[in-house]
Amino acid sequence: MDASSLRALIEDVAAGRCTPDDAVRQLRRLPYSDLGFARVDHHRDLRLGMPEAVYGPGKTPEHCGAVVGDLLRGTDGPVLLTRASEAQVKAASAVAASLGVGPGAVSENGALSTVVFRPAPRREGSVLVVTAGTADLPVAAECTAVLAALGFDPTLLADCGVAGLHRLLAEVDTIAMADAVVVIAGMEGALASVVGGLTPAPVVAVPTSTGYGAALEGVTALLAMLSACSSGITVVGIDNGYGAACAIARLLP
Amino acid sequence: MDASSLRALIEDVAAGRCTPDDAVRQLRRLPYSDLGFARVDHHRDLRLGMPEAVYGPGKTPEHCGAVVGDLLRGTDGPVLLTRASEAQVKAASAVAASLGVGPGAVSENGALSTVVFRPAPRREGSVLVVTAGTADLPVAAECTAVLAALGFDPTLLADCGVAGLHRLLAEVDTIAMADAVVVIAGMEGALASVVGGLTPAPVVAVPTSTGYGAALEGVTALLAMLSACSSGITVVGIDNGYGAACAIARLLP
Amino acid sequence: MDASSLRALIEDVAAGRCTPDDAVRQLRRLPYSDLGFARVDHHRDLRLGMPEAVYGPGKTPEHCGAVVGDLLRGTDGPVLLTRASEAQVKAASAVAASLGVGPGAVSENGALSTVVFRPAPRREGSVLVVTAGTADLPVAAECTAVLAALGFDPTLLADCGVAGLHRLLAEVDTIAMADAVVVIAGMEGALASVVGGLTPAPVVAVPTSTGYGAALEGVTALLAMLSACSSGITVVGIDNGYGAACAIARLLP
Amino acid sequence: MDASSLRALIEDVAAGRCTPDDAVRQLRRLPYSDLGFARVDHHRDLRLGMPEAVYGPGKTPEHCGAVVGDLLRGTDGPVLLTRASEAQVKAASAVAASLGVGPGAVSENGALSTVVFRPAPRREGSVLVVTAGTADLPVAAECTAVLAALGFDPTLLADCGVAGLHRLLAEVDTIAMADAVVVIAGMEGALASVVGGLTPAPVVAVPTSTGYGAALEGVTALLAMLSACSSGITVVGIDNGYGAACAIARLLP
Amino acid sequence: MDASSLRALIEDVAAGRCTPDDAVRQLRRLPYSDLGFARVDHHRDLRLGMPEAVYGPGKTPEHCGAVVGDLLRGTDGPVLLTRASEAQVKAASAVAASLGVGPGAVSENGALSTVVFRPAPRREGSVLVVTAGTADLPVAAECTAVLAALGFDPTLLADCGVAGLHRLLAEVDTIAMADAVVVIAGMEGALASVVGGLTPAPVVAVPTSTGYGAALEGVTALLAMLSACSSGITVVGIDNGYGAACAIARLLP
Amino acid sequence: MDASSLRALIEDVAAGRCTPDDAVRQLRRLPYSDLGFARVDHHRDLRLGMPEAVYGPGKTPEHCGAVVGDLLRGTDGPVLLTRASEAQVKAASAVAASLGVGPGAVSENGALSTVVFRPAPRREGSVLVVTAGTADLPVAAECTAVLAALGFDPTLLADCGVAGLHRLLAEVDTIAMADAVVVIAGMEGALASVVGGLTPAPVVAVPTSTGYGAALEGVTALLAMLSACSSGITVVGIDNGYGAACAIARLLP
Amino acid sequence: MDASSLRALIEDVAAGRCTPDDAVRQLRRLPYSDLGFARVDHHRDLRLGMPEAVYGPGKTPEHCGAVVGDLLRGTDGPVLLTRASEAQVKAASAVAASLGVGPGAVSENGALSTVVFRPAPRREGSVLVVTAGTADLPVAAECTAVLAALGFDPTLLADCGVAGLHRLLAEVDTIAMADAVVVIAGMEGALASVVGGLTPAPVVAVPTSTGYGAALEGVTALLAMLSACSSGITVVGIDNGYGAACAIARLLP
Amino acid sequence: MDASSLRALIEDVAAGRCTPDDAVRQLRRLPYSDLGFARVDHHRDLRLGMPEAVYGPGKTPEHCGAVVGDLLRGTDGPVLLTRASEAQVKAASAVAASLGVGPGAVSENGALSTVVFRPAPRREGSVLVVTAGTADLPVAAECTAVLAALGFDPTLLADCGVAGLHRLLAEVDTIAMADAVVVIAGMEGALASVVGGLTPAPVVAVPTSTGYGAALEGVTALLAMLSACSSGITVVGIDNGYGAACAIARLLP
Repeated sequence: MDASSLRALIEDVAAGRCTPDDAVRQLRRLPYSDLGFARVDHHRDLRLGMPEAVYGPGKTPEHCGAVVGDLLRGTDGPVLLTRASEAQVKAASAVAASLGVGPGAVSENGALSTVVFRPAPRREGSVLVVTAGTADLPVAAECTAVLAALGFDPTLLADCGVAGLHRLLAEVDTIAMADAVVVIAGMEGALASVVGGLTPAPVVAVPTSTGYGAALEGVTALLAMLSACSSGITVVGIDNGYGAACAIARLLP
Repeated sequence: MDASSLRALIEDVAAGRCTPDDAVRQLRRLPYSDLGFARVDHHRDLRLGMPEAVYGPGKTPEHCGAVVGDLLRGTDGPVLLTRASEAQVKAASAVAASLGVGPGAVSENGALSTVVFRPAPRREGSVLVVTAGTADLPVAAECTAVLAALGFDPTLLADCGVAGLHRLLAEVDTIAMADAVVVIAGMEGALASVVGGLTPAPVVAVPTSTGYGAALEGVTALLAMLSACSSGITVVGIDNGYGAACAIARLLP
Repeated sequence: MDASSLRALIEDVAAGRCTPDDAVRQLRRLPYSDLGFARVDHHRDLRLGMPEAVYGPGKTPEHCGAVVGDLLRGTDGPVLLTRASEAQVKAASAVAASLGVGPGAVSENGALSTVVFRPAPRREGSVLVVTAGTADLPVAAECTAVLAALGFDPTLLADCGVAGLHRLLAEVDTIAMADAVVVIAGMEGALASVVGGLTPAPVVAVPTSTGYGAALEGVTALLAMLSACSSGITVVGIDNGYGAACAIARLLP
Repeated sequence: MDASSLRALIEDVAAGRCTPDDAVRQLRRLPYSDLGFARVDHHRDLRLGMPEAVYGPGKTPEHCGAVVGDLLRGTDGPVLLTRASEAQVKAASAVAASLGVGPGAVSENGALSTVVFRPAPRREGSVLVVTAGTADLPVAAECTAVLAALGFDPTLLADCGVAGLHRLLAEVDTIAMADAVVVIAGMEGALASVVGGLTPAPVVAVPTSTGYGAALEGVTALLAMLSACSSGITVVGIDNGYGAACAIARLLP
Repeated sequence: MDASSLRALIEDVAAGRCTPDDAVRQLRRLPYSDLGFARVDHHRDLRLGMPEAVYGPGKTPEHCGAVVGDLLRGTDGPVLLTRASEAQVKAASAVAASLGVGPGAVSENGALSTVVFRPAPRREGSVLVVTAGTADLPVAAECTAVLAALGFDPTLLADCGVAGLHRLLAEVDTIAMADAVVVIAGMEGALASVVGGLTPAPVVAVPTSTGYGAALEGVTALLAMLSACSSGITVVGIDNGYGAACAIARLLP
Repeated sequence: MDASSLRALIEDVAAGRCTPDDAVRQLRRLPYSDLGFARVDHHRDLRLGMPEAVYGPGKTPEHCGAVVGDLLRGTDGPVLLTRASEAQVKAASAVAASLGVGPGAVSENGALSTVVFRPAPRREGSVLVVTAGTADLPVAAECTAVLAALGFDPTLLADCGVAGLHRLLAEVDTIAMADAVVVIAGMEGALASVVGGLTPAPVVAVPTSTGYGAALEGVTALLAMLSACSSGITVVGIDNGYGAACAIARLLP
Repeated sequence: MDASSLRALIEDVAAGRCTPDDAVRQLRRLPYSDLGFARVDHHRDLRLGMPEAVYGPGKTPEHCGAVVGDLLRGTDGPVLLTRASEAQVKAASAVAASLGVGPGAVSENGALSTVVFRPAPRREGSVLVVTAGTADLPVAAECTAVLAALGFDPTLLADCGVAGLHRLLAEVDTIAMADAVVVIAGMEGALASVVGGLTPAPVVAVPTSTGYGAALEGVTALLAMLSACSSGITVVGIDNGYGAACAIARLLP
Repeated sequence: MDASSLRALIEDVAAGRCTPDDAVRQLRRLPYSDLGFARVDHHRDLRLGMPEAVYGPGKTPEHCGAVVGDLLRGTDGPVLLTRASEAQVKAASAVAASLGVGPGAVSENGALSTVVFRPAPRREGSVLVVTAGTADLPVAAECTAVLAALGFDPTLLADCGVAGLHRLLAEVDTIAMADAVVVIAGMEGALASVVGGLTPAPVVAVPTSTGYGAALEGVTALLAMLSACSSGITVVGIDNGYGAACAIARLLP
């Protein structure tokens, strides 16, 4: 709740346009719906410039449908369903259809899907998503789907790992022209350091859980990216393509 | 090395303005100085928009002086000496003085110091640095010193931990007006999540090694910030105030 | 074995009401049943004010039925079966029915269930159970089921994570009025710190294994809660809704 | 900020007793002092029933003195300085004396001290602090000092580790009569499980960093206490005697 | 190869009873069979007084049968097949039958089995196996099966966890009379410390992977047992009932 | 891209045999194919003397077929498909057949397979692969398959763990004659230290994830091998039989 | 407290030789002294056949003197002071002298010492202590000092690491003749596996914190020893030479 | 002991040139000196082609002198003293001088030194040692000192981290011409992956403990190097410059 709306409300009280009881009620009633099992945040889009995403795992298809429906009704912006099973996608799509909202764009993220209903209008800013290997593609898919939902039109450079540096160097111009870069890599995550040394733009690194053994399900890449010798690289959680896209939305105008 | 300079060089060869031997030599000789014990990157400021910092630990005072001197001679931008001991500060300052460069601004970071020679001109963008507790101040000092070197004039909000939420809520307007926020917190690092839910601006979180026992020298705060329930928060390494400042430089115009 | 019963026994011996041999036997025979594969503690309810729960995993349905039956016969208080499979629930319910004990209340905890036979009579004390997200609901279900078995009538506030602080602040009165609060949260577990700063009542924090990657299956939330900057918060094991309920039973009169 | 004070303020506005501008200012100005390097929470005692403690490490003696002084001036309750060096104790005591506050009670916690100024009046509730070994005494000293500051008169049972069970069993009556028990143990932390099985009262377990090698500086005891087979035990951070005392203050009336 | 057999061989050479070539061959040919995929150690029983066990996981049923058969043919002592699937048990039993060896004794270890062919003759020494909970029974089953194979007749005390100390104290005599004790416990593993304080006999502790969350799949119990405050307790690997039985065989005459 | 080819290209430009535009294009176009989802490195064999392997997990059978086909077309050397499922093997083999390349040699690595198309011609150098137990055989199978693809004819010594030292000592000559040794071991990985003390040849150690509990899925063996008291042993990642084979290819002429 | 003394006491009550009040008092008063800061266990020698050791770290010299004095007065057996500083040794020795007890035997354990007052009479059983390197000698010194206190006359084989297997094989007879072996090793701890394969006697392995980097301060050796491929090896905590000696005392007659 | 010497010995026995007793004695007496506190391996140079190094930490200066002296007397090859303090260097040099061995070459490795007495004659093979930063120089100094002792004349490329890729690319020819490369890097260790992609020669990676926070004292670099996406890279322990040099000695002819 920001200062101007607070002041407006209090001026209404002072002017007799609003009783004290009503004011208290309003101060308490920020925009969210209480569905019993969930409190859906209608205010997030206004407050943070990004929609509340519905995270699939652990929810029944019915719950997914209910929350997606509530968000479609209660807000105007894009609505996201992430890491959704087939049944969850179906349930949410049915609810959307019943509200006259067209079918969401579905991107596969391994066995799960990211679904975007009512994507935001096209937005400025060239975003580059670079992956080290083909095994990082599912995380990249989540990231580009969320970027698209937020209005971006990201470019994907797949399979640019540093073991064959020429594959990366061939794209030096593409990298240099991007307004922001997401680097998605597992194993030793060295790609983040190298890209960070090639561009002055913001670099958001996403460690992935690809690889086996000493890759420690992404912990190795995570630690390596946090210790990157290129300065000013920032990192999000393991496999968190969604978070990286949101970080981009925060930093591009 | 970007495409246009490469093309220019090759056109010089084609036009006979440059022999093939010279071209090879030039292609090989990117701008850095080899001091034997260090290769000082004169190109970084151009390439990445931020200066190469001289990291004090493990270097002799003489080495620090030599690298700082080489950077002051070889580049035009700001030169940074980080985590420097008193002897290192003295050695670097003497070299700077001998080159006609005024005394650096010294910020204390615990027992060590950050020194800024020849700071960049004032730059747009309001940066807010928020700390959870007073124990986080040394890391904040490094961060604001580097931000100043890069041309920013950061605002510091100290001691806003979530245990007394009203201390933070009192600054909601300040937070909402910042173009970018650095959140510096140890212990459980919850401040990053809460701030991330209050502003749509980019939030760079710095876990600190304050606290004892289960704080695990910053690992707890690091993991918590990476798992923050507010979306789009990015994280740098433990106690890495320098890295957070560089990340800000990348993302503000 | 407490002092008064020990003294009574010894006085019986001194008075010739009990032979030394019998005394030794009695001193050795504290109230439990040895079922061969298990020693069922009939004394726990008396000693600790809370029933021995039968933990399902690793037991055959027959074993579950046998231990539940032994407890129903050997004690008067509530009997709990936790993390039980469908087959285990069925076996235990059949045994209960054969003893004239009505069907237990079954709460779903993900794929498993908590079953309560013969719940304790209603008990004073308002207990609030707050969860950060919908994914924490299975742990909350175990916790509220055990609280109900112990005689409480807990209130559940679901989905109050700190990313949308207003959802939590809207419930400030509810939080302030509770005699004890259980905070259940995964990811970075920041909710515990924030709630701890809003109430002087005891706060028991339960880290959950929700989330992925850097959430490290609950370890991140666990460490964060142990490092909470709000003082006096206590923590139980990961996903241990049962333990939190027992802790509440210990601290409310 | 609770509902009644909010309503009172708004009624003042409605009644013209307060201008909207003033109301906004008051709503923003919760009771804390901004000392520049710290925001001292004067509201904590009211809100949480326990004073804000000044944590020594990382603060200069001057800072310690300033914060202690601000708290002595701005609140009525007890003021705590924890893990303070000799110089910090001296500085804080001087400030207290200048304010007419008598010398604090100083308890040694290894090389550091806990200092209590203006302890709370005597409070009901018998609190027992049990340690496994003599090496746990410094943590116990911090815990009992804070308990005393909060008005309790705790009993200390030292050196009751389970390797000599008779030492513990000899105190069974003392344990059974306590309203709350703090168990402080390093190494394998088994004492918490055993005590938890002997009393229905709340048990707060404090793992300590005593021992070497596989004790992993308290992590082993921490994990063991969280996995205790006695139900309803809660745990605070490693060596956190302060936190355990605050937890007791929350749960005893 | 011990000194006396070496000397005998060399004396044979010196006496012309053995050519140098034959001696080298014999010195090289210690008693094992090379089956291509495995080198079966026929010498172990002689050398170490305990048979080579065939560890099931990762071997085909055919491999299991072949190694068991080779050991039955090449040695006289007991032969063990551990952690075997149903198919592996069947294959090994068929081979044994074809060699005229009666069916092995099969003990269930969760979904897997321990099979003993040709158990050793009855051996002195009373061995007690104590478990903390019923969930530790599968590990205890492996341990007692191996002890039986080695000639012992172990006594099992199940479900003696320290949460109900009286269950354990009731067996103080049994514990005091044992020549060696195996303590099998998961969660916080406190039982090992307590038992170690009750008997002067050797105590071998086996941490188990029972429990969830902070039990960290047995690591918590392992660390706790290694840090046990009772002196002279030794520990084997997590869930290693087989190893504990072998340790007993080493230490009892 | 090495210096001589760079010079040749520039001389062509100088001589007018190549336009500047063409030169830039060539400098950018190092030999790889961009298949959209993958950038296949045709240059690796030339640059590193070893083929790019196609790592199965996470790729569809179609992707595997496409990359294998691209490599068979674009290079002359061996092509490897590692950790492939049955469907992946089938898809790749069909593509190979359609290109007139004979069926690959398939080695089983647990449930997955290593497939070698067009193996390199026979190469000098005797390579010994030693495993500690039969459970290490799948990793050894991957290693020997890759060694064969690279032209070696490795010798396998299976089941030589140090628990029966004579099994290893019997092969002292074989070990002493090898030009390089790969040691594959799980559990405590002691075999690497012992072999390293028996030969002056290079020893590459591969920790495996065999064993359970304290073996920590290969981390124990990994740490042990890195700490080996025999000097000059080097280590690759857990279960990385492929990496060990490539390391051998680097160090043998 | 064992059964026979319990029965005797109760018979005294039955016979009127002891009042019930006295019986309760006696049952409560097991033999220990409460020094306020410590409960000294006089009963341990009887119960466990080994003396209570006074662990130096964290105790003042006065405390050490007091506990040692109390034990010398209250028991007949050996008294141990472990990991003691020079001041602690001096204080304890002075107290001993004042009680007419001769100077203790002092063994250096790095900067600290183990002191033995009134060692036990010579006891049967040949104990071998083997170390992998010279850096393990301080731990071996603690172990042999405690063994001597307990009546053993251990043999020390220093510097037998597996990197030079012949150094170990030269002692095969010595190893084969020992009744029990303590293996003390850091780094990869492989010596335990190898020794365990050479003798049927009990092997107690002590991981040490020697080495650097990947040796992880003893954790690597600890894990490796717990995963040893030789069966029946048992392990004590890192650097716990004292614990290994106590384990030997438990297992030798 | 290899097969030919074994056969020779036995033939001597057969021929009566050696009594059986002598043979046994010889077979037992492999070439090492037992100094009581150490068994100095004179055989290592012959067996492994590299000298036994004397590791300083934990040894008294006298011990260092004695072992160095024994090695100088008992062998012909180079003798190494690593990680030695000033006093240790002095003691060892004095002993060397008394044996007519000239002063050793001393290389500083941080506060400690590597000393080489009697270096091996110059040996073929160009070895390149590349470091990522100046903080890695102490480890590089140990590595090059040991390489020199073994007869190599290594080239050092300092400060080639991937953040300024041009510094590395400028040395592509140097890298391509080396027979073997040692890569020494801390932080995220990405240099190993990049160098591994630029040369077909063997690459031995040494993680260093430089950096702070998330660099986890070298563990991050270690894990990253083990997970390197360039195939065939091998790794030694953290900060183990000595081990890397020995690995090079094994793999170069």
